[in-house]
Amino acid sequence: MTLFDRRAIDAMPQRYRANLINCIPGYKPALLVGSANAQGQSNLAIFSSVFHIGANPALLGMIVRPAPAGTERHTLENILNSGCFTLNHVSAEMTSAAHQSSARYPRDRSEFDATVLTAGYLENFPAPYVVESPIQLGLTLAEHQQLSINDTHLIIGQVEWINCPESLITDDGTVQLTGSDSQVVCGLDSYHSVTIGRRYGYAKPDTPTSVIDR
Amino acid sequence: MTLFDRRAIDAMPQRYRANLINCIPGYKPALLVGSANAQGQSNLAIFSSVFHIGANPALLGMIVRPAPAGTERHTLENILNSGCFTLNHVSAEMTSAAHQSSARYPRDRSEFDATVLTAGYLENFPAPYVVESPIQLGLTLAEHQQLSINDTHLIIGQVEWINCPESLITDDGTVQLTGSDSQVVCGLDSYHSVTIGRRYGYAKPDTPTSVIDR
Repeated sequence: MTLFDRRAIDAMPQRYRANLINCIPGYKPALLVGSANAQGQSNLAIFSSVFHIGANPALLGMIVRPAPAGTERHTLENILNSGCFTLNHVSAEMTSAAHQSSARYPRDRSEFDATVLTAGYLENFPAPYVVESPIQLGLTLAEHQQLSINDTHLIIGQVEWINCPESLITDDGTVQLTGSDSQVVCGLDSYHSVTIGRRYGYAKPDTPTSVIDR
Repeated sequence: MTLFDRRAIDAMPQRYRANLINCIPGYKPALLVGSANAQGQSNLAIFSSVFHIGANPALLGMIVRPAPAGTERHTLENILNSGCFTLNHVSAEMTSAAHQSSARYPRDRSEFDATVLTAGYLENFPAPYVVESPIQLGLTLAEHQQLSINDTHLIIGQVEWINCPESLITDDGTVQLTGSDSQVVCGLDSYHSVTIGRRYGYAKPDTPTSVIDR
């Protein structure tokens, strides 16, 4: 093991530190965020900063970096203006297109057109979802704050709808994400499939951990 | 595909909905949080709600559920009182012990003692790390707020040190987490290894996505 202290971390070249710090807390979910502006111009961007906030009501959080001077954050603008967005799982065969959505396309160019991905719409929900995605979620903006610590934006979304193959959902509500081949991201650019894994029963003190068959 | 709208989600039995909503945004990093109280009593708990907030300074966020009436949140209390905590990766062979740390042990019982995991300490850093963990991080509390939307706690930690095998870190700072067999969690209780995956180059408009050899 090598120990990197605060001084060593601060002294790293910027891009090296960015890669290291984005990798070091572990794998993150790869999700395509679909949004649209008031004119219906669609936008799609890959994010790996979505996290669980609550199940009842169903709330998810997402971190959006602030726009450096002279740049634009189309996804953030669209979510704040339209009040809704979609989250779309990325399967292994979608990773190349999903990563390409991170390129800086101009405002009037949809990443749906620039990639091979297809925009779908639900009635009365203006944000597009990704038709090819194995699992899609629609959310409305529930809270927004800019974190004073580094100016990143915290977006909290209320889950309004879930589109998921019923075959992936088990009797107790858990979802078999190996069936959708949902990808995880390491750092900024590395996409990975996940193996079958092992499920454990509810843990109790001084009771041996039990494995749930499936 | 089956569409579940807000009404269908609201009508689900509580545990079914909890499982579904915890699974549906995708896999999350499995991390053991080490902490200690003022008397040096150690605590260890599995979390899957850690996310990236910034690389410079290196900041990570974590969501902690509020304590229902009559229960305790030892990790949260320890972090708020001591101002520091550790994040420890979980390898495949550690999943049983990691999951067992979620059992409700009394305040005076350390999950390190209750499981097979070993507490280690760095000088001048009172929160214990997990010796068996392939990657360990030490953080100081940088910000805390209780989100008004559902009373969950947002903890923001500043990365003070990283303990990681140098062999996992590549020339550009990315970390090969397949080498540490770092686990992801689906929902509340399912642990998974991750496959080698594919890394893409920096995406540019109208330039084909490139694959980085490694």
